[in-house]
Amino acid sequence: MKRVYVQEVAVRDGFQIEPRFVPTAEKIALVDALSCTGLAKIEVTSFVSAKSVPNLRDAEEVMRGITRRPGVLYTALVPNLRGAERAVAAGVDELNLVMSASESHNRANLNRSTAQSLEGFAAILKGVGGAQAGVNGSISCSFGCPFEGDVPEERVLGFAEAYLDLGVRGLTLADTTGMAHPRQVALLTEKVKRRFPQAELTLHFHNTRGMGLANVLAALDAGGDRFDASLGGLGGCPFAPGATGNICTEDLVHMLAAMGYETGVDLDELLAVARRLPAIVGHEVPGQVAKAGKITDLHRLPEGIR
Amino acid sequence: MKRVYVQEVAVRDGFQIEPRFVPTAEKIALVDALSCTGLAKIEVTSFVSAKSVPNLRDAEEVMRGITRRPGVLYTALVPNLRGAERAVAAGVDELNLVMSASESHNRANLNRSTAQSLEGFAAILKGVGGAQAGVNGSISCSFGCPFEGDVPEERVLGFAEAYLDLGVRGLTLADTTGMAHPRQVALLTEKVKRRFPQAELTLHFHNTRGMGLANVLAALDAGGDRFDASLGGLGGCPFAPGATGNICTEDLVHMLAAMGYETGVDLDELLAVARRLPAIVGHEVPGQVAKAGKITDLHRLPEGIR
Repeated sequence: MKRVYVQEVAVRDGFQIEPRFVPTAEKIALVDALSCTGLAKIEVTSFVSAKSVPNLRDAEEVMRGITRRPGVLYTALVPNLRGAERAVAAGVDELNLVMSASESHNRANLNRSTAQSLEGFAAILKGVGGAQAGVNGSISCSFGCPFEGDVPEERVLGFAEAYLDLGVRGLTLADTTGMAHPRQVALLTEKVKRRFPQAELTLHFHNTRGMGLANVLAALDAGGDRFDASLGGLGGCPFAPGATGNICTEDLVHMLAAMGYETGVDLDELLAVARRLPAIVGHEVPGQVAKAGKITDLHRLPEGIR
Repeated sequence: MKRVYVQEVAVRDGFQIEPRFVPTAEKIALVDALSCTGLAKIEVTSFVSAKSVPNLRDAEEVMRGITRRPGVLYTALVPNLRGAERAVAAGVDELNLVMSASESHNRANLNRSTAQSLEGFAAILKGVGGAQAGVNGSISCSFGCPFEGDVPEERVLGFAEAYLDLGVRGLTLADTTGMAHPRQVALLTEKVKRRFPQAELTLHFHNTRGMGLANVLAALDAGGDRFDASLGGLGGCPFAPGATGNICTEDLVHMLAAMGYETGVDLDELLAVARRLPAIVGHEVPGQVAKAGKITDLHRLPEGIR
């Protein structure tokens, strides 16, 4: 039974683009419920400006309101030194930095060049380097850019190296707009694992074109063992209206369990939490197992059949 | 570039459970449009009684109305000798027989024992054995039964052998209610390929729990090269309200193309047909690529970003 680590991002990556603000108390209750399921990591919030991401304007309150459970790592996205200082003050276990592998996506999403992003990260690591929090470096568009198309592998490997040179502990390769396919995932995962064996590698997939769990399978076969996922498949892609977003946490855990991987997650508890999500966000969510049930959930024979 | 064969089942497997009857002329137009996309096989209809499947009561008219395109194999499901005779008279290229690997599902779905199903198949092969049509033997619930749970591999292999002894050319392992997982798929695909190398093997997956394309990936790695899929992901599962059904043809072709497999299918033409499907059935369908676009469809940078 190989160990696989499942990391929850719905409260940050999902809630940030919801049409309506999810009340702080509901966010806290959801994080607390998720903490009890056995997930390895929870991305709780984002320490950005309230103006740029109004849905996450309660970052401090949420971080301070949750009940920390031993064994769960609580991470938060930080865009700059100010955000990192706020996150450290709020007691996060990990700062998650993010830049894009593509120059145009970095400019469109973060309004700066990739070189400026790296300068900012250096300032963050210098500024809060003495704090207890670990640092993870995420690379958006690692498998393709919605503006530029293909992103050369060497570019992704170069930014990974830049992150590690700055002193991050973990790396995330993110398929931000759902452009990865399994063959590509296998090749890049294997290369990053081989070139940077010291880094804790996370794969962050979206299911935009239905390939989410196929990409997980390809990454597993290439040595990946750590995946971001979003409860209910919450999240989305601004470039694909009607398309689904992040891979779904409970669907991921269900597949891994069926295949005999050890995730440490109690699937029934996770499903119970997932089934409360539509009421929290006020709409249906893409997750499938919460609707269809587990493959081990049997049905009664119709009347009259023996 | 390895060749992979994509076989369309929406007109039969999808339409049979639609809430409303799709008019005969629309079925014919859809089959004709699909015929032009490069698909290897199209399951056109089912020669069952109009009482048991009213949506497919126009089997003869549809078969006679379509324009046969060289290179496409037109198949139809037949439940008994009467249906087989009707199908042969209507000029199908292939008769598709179906039974379940599980005794209780066979009784629930077909109202007879598996032994009785095999007796019926013997009568079909004897009755229409001299006809030009080939015969394919499908095994429902090859990866699990919604009533019994696990189905022993040896049971599936036994029914496969029974089919081949009767003289069928092809075998389909069907995951009728979406219970297969990738590890199981790899093991069973490899065993069937090794034990029955003479059989043309089709894998028929459902996406009920989100594992559809992951199962395709596992089957490909185990030597599978022929897949059923349904335009738009049409189809469903009576045991899982709200859950999706068959894997989606255009999402499958999109993944295979991205990975460098040769399917012979023109993805743009297929997507054009898929995008007309919601109007034909009167509701949204689960397919993702028709909504999100291909991974090669690029977007314009937002205003003001250079």
